[in-house]
Amino acid sequence: MAQGSYVEQDFTRDTNYIGDRILAEPDPAKGPGSDTPVGEQEWPVEAGRYHLVVARACPWANRAIIVRRLLGLEGAISMGVAGPTHDADSWTFDLDEGHLDPVLQIPRIKDAYEARVPGYPRGITVPAVVDIPSGQVVTNDFPWITYDMSGQWRDHHREGAPDLWPDELRAEMDEVNKRVYTEVNNGVYRCGFAGTQESYDAAYERLWTAMDWLEERLSTRRYLVGEHITEADVRLFTTLARFDAAYHGHFKCNRSKLTEMPVLWAYARDLFTTPGFGDTTDFVHIKAHYYGVHRDINPTGVVPLGPDLSGWAEPHGRESLGGSPFAPGATAPGPVPERERVPVEHNPHVDPATGLVRTS
Amino acid sequence: MAQGSYVEQDFTRDTNYIGDRILAEPDPAKGPGSDTPVGEQEWPVEAGRYHLVVARACPWANRAIIVRRLLGLEGAISMGVAGPTHDADSWTFDLDEGHLDPVLQIPRIKDAYEARVPGYPRGITVPAVVDIPSGQVVTNDFPWITYDMSGQWRDHHREGAPDLWPDELRAEMDEVNKRVYTEVNNGVYRCGFAGTQESYDAAYERLWTAMDWLEERLSTRRYLVGEHITEADVRLFTTLARFDAAYHGHFKCNRSKLTEMPVLWAYARDLFTTPGFGDTTDFVHIKAHYYGVHRDINPTGVVPLGPDLSGWAEPHGRESLGGSPFAPGATAPGPVPERERVPVEHNPHVDPATGLVRTS
Repeated sequence: MAQGSYVEQDFTRDTNYIGDRILAEPDPAKGPGSDTPVGEQEWPVEAGRYHLVVARACPWANRAIIVRRLLGLEGAISMGVAGPTHDADSWTFDLDEGHLDPVLQIPRIKDAYEARVPGYPRGITVPAVVDIPSGQVVTNDFPWITYDMSGQWRDHHREGAPDLWPDELRAEMDEVNKRVYTEVNNGVYRCGFAGTQESYDAAYERLWTAMDWLEERLSTRRYLVGEHITEADVRLFTTLARFDAAYHGHFKCNRSKLTEMPVLWAYARDLFTTPGFGDTTDFVHIKAHYYGVHRDINPTGVVPLGPDLSGWAEPHGRESLGGSPFAPGATAPGPVPERERVPVEHNPHVDPATGLVRTS
Repeated sequence: MAQGSYVEQDFTRDTNYIGDRILAEPDPAKGPGSDTPVGEQEWPVEAGRYHLVVARACPWANRAIIVRRLLGLEGAISMGVAGPTHDADSWTFDLDEGHLDPVLQIPRIKDAYEARVPGYPRGITVPAVVDIPSGQVVTNDFPWITYDMSGQWRDHHREGAPDLWPDELRAEMDEVNKRVYTEVNNGVYRCGFAGTQESYDAAYERLWTAMDWLEERLSTRRYLVGEHITEADVRLFTTLARFDAAYHGHFKCNRSKLTEMPVLWAYARDLFTTPGFGDTTDFVHIKAHYYGVHRDINPTGVVPLGPDLSGWAEPHGRESLGGSPFAPGATAPGPVPERERVPVEHNPHVDPATGLVRTS
């Protein structure tokens, strides 16, 4: 998500990204030193070469955190975590010792954008993948970042890594992903940043039409597409995890709370208690970001103390729908590497000893 | 509630009211023409002489609307309804034909304050009781307005009017009322208008400590004090009726929604479906007021379309706690006078044929 000013008559997301890709078999003629324009270049998969910069607050970055963890790419792609708020200029590494990213040794992600494109004119966003040797942003094109983690980094996946894009489900996933993206992931922003009553009203109707569709769709199937977790679930989860904490009040997505949608709430809890999901969810960063950064809709910057999060680990009862989190042969990721754990003060369900969500 | 600017480091309510009283046996030496200072004068009870000016949005005014209706004072005290929003200057009669109050023939309640005290320096608030012959505000001291409707206007009560201040319960009512006022009625404003994180955090803790006390207290008794509805219930109800529609999101009172507090939510529904309560609740005015007027915490002025209100008339199951809405000999008020009905577009539970709430 980018910094800046937010409210406009009809909110439209700046989708102008650096679209380079990191590929298992890149075309050398399109490499970073070539004549291929920035945004169309191809970089090689190489363990230890790239640094994934995220903010735990950001739903688009949270996708990448989840997918990296499900696939076990922690050893191949390091991760830098920006703080939940940012100045007018950029997300900053204010959580790190000396306020410098420990790998890139820069104070703000903007520096890596400038290293790639001096005077970079577009949104400074996370997630961003940075080439460590040159300190340059390779890509901030979030749907491709996670897609390529699945398809291009296979040689570096952990044993038991799930297939988040099964070939036979892609057509259905594309359809579902598209609707979830335009109507839900982005739909909440359309509500929150609407500058007029008319644009808000239209955005609200679109959002809740899609929420009702999801409530219905998930009433007979455990996961969005197929019998196991796919990236379609990852993409929906990161919005649901922020729904009551931020979107319900701050973005006026308030027909009901997620906790009042029985099917979606059980679905969200099912994922939350699956390794990779709840253990990457930082409610303190989420609230600090939304309420602290969007001063044009929350001028005081006061961050609410609610909602009560105690229900997230309650039994969800979704096992009876059939399916299972992971297909035969795939397994859940293990404990979270110590330096990547969400503190229990930021998510009351995290077990500090493992970084995993404790189920009740 | 007054107009103006709201956020301050620690919100403090301006409680500097015109405290004149209307009494069954006033001291003639303290009458409006006397040397007694404004604020300490005594006016005589007299049917047809006074006009109660309210806004349906305002919880303090809503108290007066409910009490007037429970006691059947509609014929003795007429009522003027200001619109839900107001300019920097005053609540206005923009709902009325020609934008003039039909009885007072003024466009804004400020004019009645100026008629009483030229250059009136304090908050222009509702409820206000206006002396119709002189067009002057008699009192805007809301706790006394309803208290005196009960105690001083007895000769004009309808047959079957309840005793909202039973002698034997007053000590307990005073104690409960005080805590409900400081911690809940006013506590939600303390959260919403907190100008710093510290003052908000403290306000939130105070509010939810009181909400937990109420949840506990009402788990074994149907009403706040005694076996029947008293003014203590009226005072709590007007805050609960606004909780999810305004305070939960707009004022960041978001540990949970009222709908997520099982006891308080059932208690609120019990009252809502009792004549006098839900039939005076205008959700459209409530939302339009809070979200439209407090631009310092909602700069866009966009009014949320939520929450879903469908649960308000669902069975509450509180009968099993014993007690009854009205004591033996007292009865519920009948249909709402046609010109005072809340439109069904503003409260989906109102039956347009009677103005009463339909129960499911």
